[in-house]
Amino acid sequence: MTMKTNNYLSSEKMTDNKINILVTFDKNYINPFRVMIKSLAISNPMETFHIWLLHSAIPQEDLFALTEYCSKQKITLTAIEIDRELFKNAPVSKQYPQEMYYRMMAPLMLPNGLERVLYLDPDILVINSIRSLWEMQLENYSFAAASHGFVLDEFIDEVNKARLGTEHDYFNTGVLLIDLKRARTITKAEEIYRCVIDKANQLILPDQDVFNCLYGSYTVQIADEIWNYDARYYSAYLLKSEGKFDLDWVMQNTVFLHFCGKQKPWKKKYSGRFSALYKHYMNLIDM
Amino acid sequence: MTMKTNNYLSSEKMTDNKINILVTFDKNYINPFRVMIKSLAISNPMETFHIWLLHSAIPQEDLFALTEYCSKQKITLTAIEIDRELFKNAPVSKQYPQEMYYRMMAPLMLPNGLERVLYLDPDILVINSIRSLWEMQLENYSFAAASHGFVLDEFIDEVNKARLGTEHDYFNTGVLLIDLKRARTITKAEEIYRCVIDKANQLILPDQDVFNCLYGSYTVQIADEIWNYDARYYSAYLLKSEGKFDLDWVMQNTVFLHFCGKQKPWKKKYSGRFSALYKHYMNLIDM
Repeated sequence: MTMKTNNYLSSEKMTDNKINILVTFDKNYINPFRVMIKSLAISNPMETFHIWLLHSAIPQEDLFALTEYCSKQKITLTAIEIDRELFKNAPVSKQYPQEMYYRMMAPLMLPNGLERVLYLDPDILVINSIRSLWEMQLENYSFAAASHGFVLDEFIDEVNKARLGTEHDYFNTGVLLIDLKRARTITKAEEIYRCVIDKANQLILPDQDVFNCLYGSYTVQIADEIWNYDARYYSAYLLKSEGKFDLDWVMQNTVFLHFCGKQKPWKKKYSGRFSALYKHYMNLIDM
Repeated sequence: MTMKTNNYLSSEKMTDNKINILVTFDKNYINPFRVMIKSLAISNPMETFHIWLLHSAIPQEDLFALTEYCSKQKITLTAIEIDRELFKNAPVSKQYPQEMYYRMMAPLMLPNGLERVLYLDPDILVINSIRSLWEMQLENYSFAAASHGFVLDEFIDEVNKARLGTEHDYFNTGVLLIDLKRARTITKAEEIYRCVIDKANQLILPDQDVFNCLYGSYTVQIADEIWNYDARYYSAYLLKSEGKFDLDWVMQNTVFLHFCGKQKPWKKKYSGRFSALYKHYMNLIDM
């Protein structure tokens, strides 16, 4: 009975209760992805996950190894290869590879039967249960994402809005819940390509900027301190929350620790409040 | 064939390959113990563990809950109750409860068939495989333990030697590998009680001091940066190792992170290089 009132998961999906995760990365991000998956499994021991990987050039042997790795964590994986030609004119860099754009294509690429998927950046550590986000009612929105305006500076948000000519908060797309059924009705591949190329010179975080331009108004905001905690700014979160978001609070409540920015936690030089935690997970992936 | 040449594990033990862990704590340390067990299981996914708990006053319902908790980590547990009267005259405090003395009694308390056990303090986080310590050849020694002389200050070691009138390095007994077969031949309960009472006024770390007095000369030294890393002294380890023991090295090589001293990582105020890591494990125990 209750299943019928649920407006975003088919009864079939509700029955198997599997959480669908979307990832899009290139060969350079295989190890961070493995870390993310390890932390996801450890913090969500009672869940069943299926991973959808949209990629272009991950070699077959790496895909085999990834599938086996996921299987050890009792996670299944489907890899879908996307033609590189589609985004050949999009701005890319080592930090922002072409694969980042693929999250926006997911509504067109993923099987029609799939009604909801949670996109996660590979530079994320999962430290608590993701179920309440997975079950979140999106009402009339197609996406849910967090904004870092609160912790960074509201001014930055204004700059981003002015830069992109948008009205809504500037969303970080590192964690993106997608209602595929609704997103399919608004996602047009041509529009994405055009936006990427037209705005090439204004784009700072290419894929994220495009997402904000095209889909920001279809996105409902979720709390960044829970769903997209910027791991660079422990002190800022603590200060702005008047001491509430201390380390105990973060460890007990934050779900996604997002290692935003250029200083990546897998680098030898990285030292931050969560560096031991991240490096411990890096070490666990080979066990 | 090779089993017969192995001088410390019976062929039966070699067959089931189970690692025997000894713990001794009171009710106040149940949660730290659960954290330790969680980290042990996660960092040693291919091992089978059996826990021996020597205690005096842990209520039956807590023992049931602990057994169930261990069982979730695929770990078995045997609790052995020791008569409190035995150590009624020993110096104790909240930080150093009576149960700490029980590790020295283990050779007399544990089943005769058991040939080796690894004692672990409950304020430890296990972050790598313990197998190589478990399989260590002890030659003619009865125990293996680390000294913190290297990281603290050699002077401290001299003070401890002078204070206790011992010749050998001052051992930290938070991690203690015990060859039970040999230890049974030298362990006399009366001698332990007498030493505890005779030296009551000189004892700073009561159980550890007694161990050093009575069994220090039967103990082989193991590397503290691997087997008993004092989590207070990241910078000192880094400095003394000329930069070798950085965070990557510690996460990849250290097996036991020992949260020595009065500032315990489960306290709200605790902040240290490994605080996020410890608090993450604290949070995992309820999953």
